Amino acid sequence: MINKLIAKIRKTNAPIVVGLDPMLNYVPEHIRKAAFGQFGETLEGAAEAIWQYNKGIVDAVCDLVPAVKPQIAMYEQFGIPGLAAFRKTVDYCKEKDLVVIGDVKRGDIGSTSEAYAVGHLGKVQVGSRMLEGFGEEFATVNPYLGSDGVKPFLKVCAEEKKGIFVLVKTSNPSSGELQDRLVKAAWKTGEDRNGETEERPLYEVVGRYVAAWGEQCMPAEGAYSYVGAVVGATYPEQGRLLRRIMPKAFILVPGYGAQGGKGADLVHFFNEDGLGAIINSSRGIIAAYQQEQYARFGEYGYADASRAAVLAMKDDIAAALEQRSKAF
Amino acid sequence: MINKLIAKIRKTNAPIVVGLDPMLNYVPEHIRKAAFGQFGETLEGAAEAIWQYNKGIVDAVCDLVPAVKPQIAMYEQFGIPGLAAFRKTVDYCKEKDLVVIGDVKRGDIGSTSEAYAVGHLGKVQVGSRMLEGFGEEFATVNPYLGSDGVKPFLKVCAEEKKGIFVLVKTSNPSSGELQDRLVKAAWKTGEDRNGETEERPLYEVVGRYVAAWGEQCMPAEGAYSYVGAVVGATYPEQGRLLRRIMPKAFILVPGYGAQGGKGADLVHFFNEDGLGAIINSSRGIIAAYQQEQYARFGEYGYADASRAAVLAMKDDIAAALEQRSKAF
Repeated sequence: MINKLIAKIRKTNAPIVVGLDPMLNYVPEHIRKAAFGQFGETLEGAAEAIWQYNKGIVDAVCDLVPAVKPQIAMYEQFGIPGLAAFRKTVDYCKEKDLVVIGDVKRGDIGSTSEAYAVGHLGKVQVGSRMLEGFGEEFATVNPYLGSDGVKPFLKVCAEEKKGIFVLVKTSNPSSGELQDRLVKAAWKTGEDRNGETEERPLYEVVGRYVAAWGEQCMPAEGAYSYVGAVVGATYPEQGRLLRRIMPKAFILVPGYGAQGGKGADLVHFFNEDGLGAIINSSRGIIAAYQQEQYARFGEYGYADASRAAVLAMKDDIAAALEQRSKAF
Repeated sequence: MINKLIAKIRKTNAPIVVGLDPMLNYVPEHIRKAAFGQFGETLEGAAEAIWQYNKGIVDAVCDLVPAVKPQIAMYEQFGIPGLAAFRKTVDYCKEKDLVVIGDVKRGDIGSTSEAYAVGHLGKVQVGSRMLEGFGEEFATVNPYLGSDGVKPFLKVCAEEKKGIFVLVKTSNPSSGELQDRLVKAAWKTGEDRNGETEERPLYEVVGRYVAAWGEQCMPAEGAYSYVGAVVGATYPEQGRLLRRIMPKAFILVPGYGAQGGKGADLVHFFNEDGLGAIINSSRGIIAAYQQEQYARFGEYGYADASRAAVLAMKDDIAAALEQRSKAF
């Protein structure tokens, strides 16, 4: 699936993933009204509203981008009907040949992580049958529990040729509270002497785990592993370092647009092959019509506004990458 | 809800939570057969099997214990039908007046954590109505993203008088890979000199965050905060330290029984008031009939075997606590 992602990035010339993180107040009134008219102001009504809203956006952008990233929390808040809308969104995006990254940030002890891995990326055994729970192609994974919590995902990735993105350095303002702590790292660099350890931020330790897990989980062909990393666009310097220590990891980069990241901040997340990163924008694309810049599209043109926002993002990133390649 | 939990622990004299983490191979054949007979070998069939299995256990132990902890991964692996069985289990346990701890280990950036907090512990706004997604009374939370990811839970806990348990030191073998790393801690202790920082394991840093978050989130009356911690039974020494630095945090202690923790290991997780900890056992209780010790109950007596295992666990912990109080 990592090779499919790369092929699609090349084809669309857009290392972009659209974050399908619908909030009810992003959904245009006419869609909300129709959904509430059919199901009432219920969880089912909310789920129908976000599903119809998603469908419009997916139809409008599916030829422009390689991938989507539905954030499961935005569906889970609406209980079972919300999660059914998540599943429907996953299925629909796959029909449209989009790569689907489930932003689920799961992670637990071994046997429990196995259940998450199976449910989101693999198949669960029921009697004599193997059945798909949610069927995403990638999932995001939280590393706080260590290798035990990640290895069941590696097993499923190898079997199913799917992938994960491990949280390394997240885009939010308080990510440094734990992730930036300096720790004694056992990892050696050229500067080590007599095996003495150095102090490194925790995210670097996690980055080195990602590189090591990735070595065990490579497709038969290709330069990138099934194990990627999440590194926020809001931390470009950290991105530069992490790019270097995880050369075979694809980096999923949230935080572009609404959270403040810009194209020029992103170039160091890419390898010299022009690959190795995929930039996520959620609100900036899916709620583009609510921004002054795209207000002309109006509520009924929300999906066209999303398309225009994708095109602008594509240009911004392409320009930044071209600027960089000139500098080489 | 923390006060309800404490009242129920006092009433049952059992600081015990039953982990409802059903695997299909724990479910007795006659229950599986009936469920597959009705729904086929489908996700619905699997969900029906684990729900009927849970119901039997809950009926058999609900007068003995204060709380249950369904592990959502075990349901999520069966997709939407599995999550519907989770919700049904939550509802049924609440009907039986059990406190329900959703072991969901969620955590994300601010706005996304808010969706999880609302969906699991609070109510989501749909038009003019406020609706419940899953309706647990406590949830477990992953701290890797820092305060941003936890604060939305604190807000919902304060509003709804519900609670969280933050992962501090997990019970699994590889938990130390990140959690035990020595970091420069800004926190001062009596041994600090001239404001110099000391090296502390990361779990201690997280424990101090838990204490600080808890100070902001106390019920009007009572000694314990809405913010608890998860500390594995398999790490008793760390439990002793963390007990001291988080005096107002209830500690949820997984890892008893199947993972190797014993009653005697657990005494230091409790405060001198005999409270402050609740010990989880999952497989050791719910699949007791599969152990030699309880094999006499047979498959049809699985729920009675669970009851016997709860009683044995209760005795083990009570004996350990009595031993300790003699030592004071």
